[in-house]
Amino acid sequence: MNFSSKILEEAVHALSSLPGIGKKSALRLALHLVQDNTHKSDKIAVALAKLSTDIKKCKICYNISDEDVCEICKSESRLKNILCVVETARDVMAIEDTNQFRGFYHVLGGVISPMEGIGPQDLAIDALVNRIKTGGIDELIMAVSPTIEGETTIYYISKLVRDMNVKVSIIARGVAFGGELEYADELTLGRSIATRVPYELQS
Amino acid sequence: MNFSSKILEEAVHALSSLPGIGKKSALRLALHLVQDNTHKSDKIAVALAKLSTDIKKCKICYNISDEDVCEICKSESRLKNILCVVETARDVMAIEDTNQFRGFYHVLGGVISPMEGIGPQDLAIDALVNRIKTGGIDELIMAVSPTIEGETTIYYISKLVRDMNVKVSIIARGVAFGGELEYADELTLGRSIATRVPYELQS
Repeated sequence: MNFSSKILEEAVHALSSLPGIGKKSALRLALHLVQDNTHKSDKIAVALAKLSTDIKKCKICYNISDEDVCEICKSESRLKNILCVVETARDVMAIEDTNQFRGFYHVLGGVISPMEGIGPQDLAIDALVNRIKTGGIDELIMAVSPTIEGETTIYYISKLVRDMNVKVSIIARGVAFGGELEYADELTLGRSIATRVPYELQS
Repeated sequence: MNFSSKILEEAVHALSSLPGIGKKSALRLALHLVQDNTHKSDKIAVALAKLSTDIKKCKICYNISDEDVCEICKSESRLKNILCVVETARDVMAIEDTNQFRGFYHVLGGVISPMEGIGPQDLAIDALVNRIKTGGIDELIMAVSPTIEGETTIYYISKLVRDMNVKVSIIARGVAFGGELEYADELTLGRSIATRVPYELQS
């Protein structure tokens, strides 16, 4: 590409470092920003600069937060005895969006993956164990992806907390609502039959 | 979406103001930037801030430029007597990438479109006429989109410069190289037959 402006070229280069944005998309975005008269590029610049300087990790649950302790951990109305263990901050948002969980969270920051060189020491597992040791937690809900790495992580954590008088549960796996059975993979479908639950007739 | 961080929410909001980027993509990008440790978000912020403050329009051709006069207009080795009239700075880049044009450019900033309320006074047409009046230009190549608005713009400009002793040409329209004839639209194919050119046998 023949850029008439070094500044434009740098913006295209910077934008194309984002995942899923190639050179052509980046150029389209940059030219859109140049032609925009609503100071959009300034607004984005300020917001992104804050992302790298002002954002923190909650000291308690390791979720993304603006302060040392996140809004969820500060809440007085949540159930203190249930902890939901997730991989990322994105998962916290997804579960919060369901409105089905009123306990607290613990964000691991990933799963154990020897292939990618991620061991237990790279995750917030020690912090999780310390939270349980502090007491008051009755149940750990493992809301971790049902992959080999996820299962390994669940196994590792449940072994660690075995003697700590805390119940470990995993979120239900099975066919998705609205999905057609013929498109469900064999493993999921097989497991969903093996782990079938009694049907409750609603009167 | 339940955001655990106001800063994250603002970044998602800002990113989703870009064309083609929805809330979910914006969230994915923002979380990528939060997790990145190479100061990517700072780099993008700096590049975008410069876009809105430092970028200029060339005083001569209205192309995007870092200085008052762009690199192309400053060039001594280009043909001074040919001017290529285009809609946008993106078109200048596209034509420069072909390496087929060694003259100068004039960026209109769009085409005449009564439907969108864009009249001749909203485009750099006066500046074009002034450049021709200054003298030294023998040919205007109209490299404008072959749409109704584009044709209207070509007609308007060629009427304006009719008595100014400058030849007006338009870029060739016809079937695209590598395209299959059966997929060419009727108008293009019909015109390409009507405006056929003699075949030159290469010896």
